[in-house]
Amino acid sequence: MPEISEQEYNQQRLQQVNEALGSGMFVYVRKLLQHMPAYDLALILESSTAKSRPVLWQLIDPDFHGEVLEELNEEVRKGILKSMRPEKLAAVAEGMDIDDLAEVFRTLPDSIYNEVLNSMDSQDRSRVETALSYEEDTAGGMMNTDTITLRPDVTVDVVLRYLRLKGDLPDATDSFYVVDRNNKFIGAVSLAAIVTAKAEAIVSSLINAEVEAVQAELGEQDVAQLFERHDWFSAPVVDDAGHLLGRITIDDVIDIIRENAEHSMMSMAGLDDEADTFAPVIKSTKQRSLWLGVNLITALMAVAVTSMFEGVFQQLAILAVLNSLVPSMGGVAGNQTLTLVIRGMALGHVGDSNARALLSKEVAIGFLNGIIWATLIATVVAIWKQDLMLGGVIAFAMLMNMTAAGLAGVSIPLLLKRLNIDPALAGSVIITTVTDVVGIFAFLGTATLLLT
Amino acid sequence: MPEISEQEYNQQRLQQVNEALGSGMFVYVRKLLQHMPAYDLALILESSTAKSRPVLWQLIDPDFHGEVLEELNEEVRKGILKSMRPEKLAAVAEGMDIDDLAEVFRTLPDSIYNEVLNSMDSQDRSRVETALSYEEDTAGGMMNTDTITLRPDVTVDVVLRYLRLKGDLPDATDSFYVVDRNNKFIGAVSLAAIVTAKAEAIVSSLINAEVEAVQAELGEQDVAQLFERHDWFSAPVVDDAGHLLGRITIDDVIDIIRENAEHSMMSMAGLDDEADTFAPVIKSTKQRSLWLGVNLITALMAVAVTSMFEGVFQQLAILAVLNSLVPSMGGVAGNQTLTLVIRGMALGHVGDSNARALLSKEVAIGFLNGIIWATLIATVVAIWKQDLMLGGVIAFAMLMNMTAAGLAGVSIPLLLKRLNIDPALAGSVIITTVTDVVGIFAFLGTATLLLT
Repeated sequence: MPEISEQEYNQQRLQQVNEALGSGMFVYVRKLLQHMPAYDLALILESSTAKSRPVLWQLIDPDFHGEVLEELNEEVRKGILKSMRPEKLAAVAEGMDIDDLAEVFRTLPDSIYNEVLNSMDSQDRSRVETALSYEEDTAGGMMNTDTITLRPDVTVDVVLRYLRLKGDLPDATDSFYVVDRNNKFIGAVSLAAIVTAKAEAIVSSLINAEVEAVQAELGEQDVAQLFERHDWFSAPVVDDAGHLLGRITIDDVIDIIRENAEHSMMSMAGLDDEADTFAPVIKSTKQRSLWLGVNLITALMAVAVTSMFEGVFQQLAILAVLNSLVPSMGGVAGNQTLTLVIRGMALGHVGDSNARALLSKEVAIGFLNGIIWATLIATVVAIWKQDLMLGGVIAFAMLMNMTAAGLAGVSIPLLLKRLNIDPALAGSVIITTVTDVVGIFAFLGTATLLLT
Repeated sequence: MPEISEQEYNQQRLQQVNEALGSGMFVYVRKLLQHMPAYDLALILESSTAKSRPVLWQLIDPDFHGEVLEELNEEVRKGILKSMRPEKLAAVAEGMDIDDLAEVFRTLPDSIYNEVLNSMDSQDRSRVETALSYEEDTAGGMMNTDTITLRPDVTVDVVLRYLRLKGDLPDATDSFYVVDRNNKFIGAVSLAAIVTAKAEAIVSSLINAEVEAVQAELGEQDVAQLFERHDWFSAPVVDDAGHLLGRITIDDVIDIIRENAEHSMMSMAGLDDEADTFAPVIKSTKQRSLWLGVNLITALMAVAVTSMFEGVFQQLAILAVLNSLVPSMGGVAGNQTLTLVIRGMALGHVGDSNARALLSKEVAIGFLNGIIWATLIATVVAIWKQDLMLGGVIAFAMLMNMTAAGLAGVSIPLLLKRLNIDPALAGSVIITTVTDVVGIFAFLGTATLLLT
């Protein structure tokens, strides 16, 4: 059993690097960074302040620059690419996987894009152009082109001799793809099938019927779901006419899965999922102020509703004191339902076919929880303020608002999805507005009618 | 290009199944379910109401029950296991992978646990007991025992003959493990190395130095990070003395990665990450009421602070109207910072070594955003209410609270982590309390001093 966890170990090493950097011991930092895997170097860059990143980058062995760029978060990568000279970039690009290369090119500023492309040799240039011809978030944008293809009519013995001659397989090769003479995809044969089959077996007899080709235009979410459904480790990518273009491996799919899961959480707080933890202050301030502005409008709507009851406060100041209670509980309940629905949508659990069942379930939960908290809060208020009627008013408002929260928590994300608006981004603000407005109206409105 | 996405296709199929189920066409439903992969069957069960799940389960071919149980969300699985008779369970367990089997056994009620164990044959019983001897969230709890081992001194030719004789490899085999005669792990040899090496090459010369063995007690988070760092597809698991126990494959790691990312989002809303979207109403109501109760305490604290200023409202009802504005904006800003920090912790970006840098960055962002919104809101209020002083008071409170939000957003999750409390679960409530209390005090306190 290790004495410290990986995370603690990372943090210790990071501290070491930062302290050395702070005291200007550049040679020592270079030495510390020398034998780290690209993943660790990326982690150190992402965990450092925006100011120290260019210095660290200079101290990383340029032979690793390509690999590190592949591992970096998009925002951090952009910052580093901006600081690199075009000819350096072209040199780095040569060693990169085609899918990562395309990603890097997509984040390049237009001004240096062509400069980098021109300083590459024609073979690399054509690799980049192929990769860029597919949308980033499709199978074509995720694939690599380093496949090994076999003809259907050769024997296992011939395949094994060919592989020995080759002497090396691309990373993460678990299957070979069988194609005809026009490069049309016929099927996949696993490496495991090759090594367990008889020497005289014919390749076409070993094709795994469970592996289908993925269309290059298929969206990345759908690709991820296919991998999970079939427990694939890799999959072939084909064009419209069925020609083999490349393959996707599971490590690229992992990134999609993580990004999806993170996306919901970050969006619900109005943050970009690629947000850089250590971005410069001005940049972060700008990015966040938009979301704060949207929320200010929500808050002002609550203020506008409250101001309709301004006169009541002079008579009954206790209403002003209690006014935040009902909206606050409704907001929490509504956001619970929203979070559940957003996760359900991401997992493919929630859609039109079961929307009604979900709606009645969540409204029922809202109503039941409303009864629980309405009873409790009414008792507290009735005893505290010796006012049974006030307790009754707040209980009624609570019950109304909790039920409304369940209703809004399901229907708003479903509605937003139908309008092609991201429910994770817009849902929370809208639900908070609904529970604020319903809560304030229910509480102050009923109080005005019954208590004044 | 497919005409509909995977998700739409799933929803259509789900609707088909549900409609058939609703009209009692059981034979047709059975037919619909017959050729679906286990992943799809699990998705259908998870997307159905708690009531229809037992019926669907009966209609699924029992030969697939084991595989479907492996794919199911924990909560949903528990519900189904409860409805199964012990001898059926024992039969299903025979075909399951050892890691999934252990997971199923961990969710069995004690009463039937022994009954199931007793109806298994001794070999299966010992498999279960091995799997259960490691904690669920460690490498030992994640591993499978279906490894292929090789001796270091044999030639590639011998290995290939052995594999042909075997005729079949365990799923997802990309490496063989080299062990000595005491089953001590020596190293890993990839399948790719075997097929590309010369027939007379010795196994020990093909060992991949980049693959290390994972200790059985290592936590699942650390396992996931090792896989990402080294781009592994599988890894050997050993005990303290270095004996080979089994292997972990990347598909098990994917589950950890997704669960981690989902965990933060669900916890922030006070939900269990394994929460069942279609759980029965009573169960969900109970689960959520705890969180609502915690939030009620937060809300009551805000009420208590506000009530200290009750007298002021009778003089200046406008203060009651505007009172929600400052806490609300502070809450949004604080939760933005919290979300960023929680994600940063999960990714390993944030720790003691860079906490101070992060703190000063977030406080600066809070201060700058405070200035922006303070100026704006002061202008609006000063013009609307023709009261420059009131505008000044709200601006001051806003600036104070936004700065406090940045401070609390960083320091609270770091503090909670040090106390071993999950920041994703407790952070949001605490920060909301801080921004409520600071916001109300700053606004109503200053207003009382300057305006009355």
